[in-house]
Amino acid sequence: MEPRRTVFFVSDRTGITLEALGKTLLTQFPGVDFHKRTLPFVDTEEKARAALTEINDSARTEPQRPIVLSTLINAQLRAIVTSADALCLDLFEGFLGRLQTELHMLPSYELGLSHGMGSQIVYEARMTALSYTLAHDDGMTTSNYTEADLILVGVSRSGKTPTCLYLAMQYGVRAANYPLTPDDFASTALPKLLAPFRNKLFGLTITPERLAAIRNERKPGSRYASMDTCREEIHAAERLLRHEGIPLLDTTAMSVEEIAITILHQTGLHQTSLAARLHG
Amino acid sequence: MEPRRTVFFVSDRTGITLEALGKTLLTQFPGVDFHKRTLPFVDTEEKARAALTEINDSARTEPQRPIVLSTLINAQLRAIVTSADALCLDLFEGFLGRLQTELHMLPSYELGLSHGMGSQIVYEARMTALSYTLAHDDGMTTSNYTEADLILVGVSRSGKTPTCLYLAMQYGVRAANYPLTPDDFASTALPKLLAPFRNKLFGLTITPERLAAIRNERKPGSRYASMDTCREEIHAAERLLRHEGIPLLDTTAMSVEEIAITILHQTGLHQTSLAARLHG
Repeated sequence: MEPRRTVFFVSDRTGITLEALGKTLLTQFPGVDFHKRTLPFVDTEEKARAALTEINDSARTEPQRPIVLSTLINAQLRAIVTSADALCLDLFEGFLGRLQTELHMLPSYELGLSHGMGSQIVYEARMTALSYTLAHDDGMTTSNYTEADLILVGVSRSGKTPTCLYLAMQYGVRAANYPLTPDDFASTALPKLLAPFRNKLFGLTITPERLAAIRNERKPGSRYASMDTCREEIHAAERLLRHEGIPLLDTTAMSVEEIAITILHQTGLHQTSLAARLHG
Repeated sequence: MEPRRTVFFVSDRTGITLEALGKTLLTQFPGVDFHKRTLPFVDTEEKARAALTEINDSARTEPQRPIVLSTLINAQLRAIVTSADALCLDLFEGFLGRLQTELHMLPSYELGLSHGMGSQIVYEARMTALSYTLAHDDGMTTSNYTEADLILVGVSRSGKTPTCLYLAMQYGVRAANYPLTPDDFASTALPKLLAPFRNKLFGLTITPERLAAIRNERKPGSRYASMDTCREEIHAAERLLRHEGIPLLDTTAMSVEEIAITILHQTGLHQTSLAARLHG
């Protein structure tokens, strides 16, 4: 029988980062049946005590003591939570001390500094980029490509839209996308609309098998989803983009996050986009 | 003069989580001028050695040694990178050992287990939810609310669209949204389209000042963006939602992430949505 363990993620903010890191740690122990529970916004003594009670309740009723992963900046709240009858690992505890020694400086212990004024500008850049991206999805509006930071090109369903949305929302990249359709393959040159923006183009491609599977989800049994159509469109799109020297990424086995980060680094946008600059 | 420090984020995956956690740590030292550099996908010995060279180059040319924050599962790659002439903090190193002791089990040391088959299902749930959300943005299609996990309601520009996209992309929540317009305020009852889905509704609100600022960005000087219009619409929307017992969240000072996590926890969707269940 798999051993069962309750794991608490306790954060003074949303807990999003903590969950992501914690899950990576826990997947290293695939033999354990982890029951995860996230306690976000633990930013007062009252909430810290409520978290403590919940963890200790679990310790009493479960056969094995729980595991607590936390990111709590405030040392007092951290002391309350980590007094629980559990294996308590705070991801900040050790690192803040070592940074303090290295930098000869006390931490500010201020919560949510990353949501201060500097980051308000970043935040608004992200929201503006998201509006731009929504308005320029799927070649809907092409008049405004001069404002784009990036234009993703590729056949329908090659992953352009989710990638654009992710880049806009997380990094403030004004990412437009243009679907290559059979009309565009009549010529060996770039579509007229795209030609002036060659340096903003980035191509996404995918295997015909994966594309056919995705398109069949959407329009089962259609000509659009057939292996022949998928193979032809991908072949033509890849030939066109290679011929024009546009960077091309095979997204078949990649998540949106992996595609986005690869594009950011390959294009240099991780250093030049507004949000990246302001973040940095 | 502010001391300057170069910080490297070295990850065997995208580095997204590491950057987020690292930046929270660094904001605790606002007096330092940190120069950040992310090295993602460091998953081979060759890439680890290239990272090492880059870090050591920086150590030679900068007045102070760099800081390296890493998340490297593979102990051999970690040893290469952390041999750099820098303050090296690996976020996995200590925790893996302590979990191993607690669980009486060796870590698998397999990279990217979180992208295995279980997570392929989660991934597709996220992409399906994103398609659903895009198709049901801004009340565009209302015929399909039976499939929604959540329907956000609120006046135009109260934060519905970014929140829906975030919930769909990150958590696989099929989140639709319906903008409340003056037409809806003629009656004191819920709009007919929404009434059957009362238990899926969640209201977003915002202060008139903030709403007017956001709307003025979009349509400067318009009646739509005026303080009077904003005040009236918000007042009517809040009255309607309160009267109908719909939960209501003031998003004025919140980021999309904070809004999303609050909704997930308040509605219980963090435990019942497909992606959450499969993640868990």
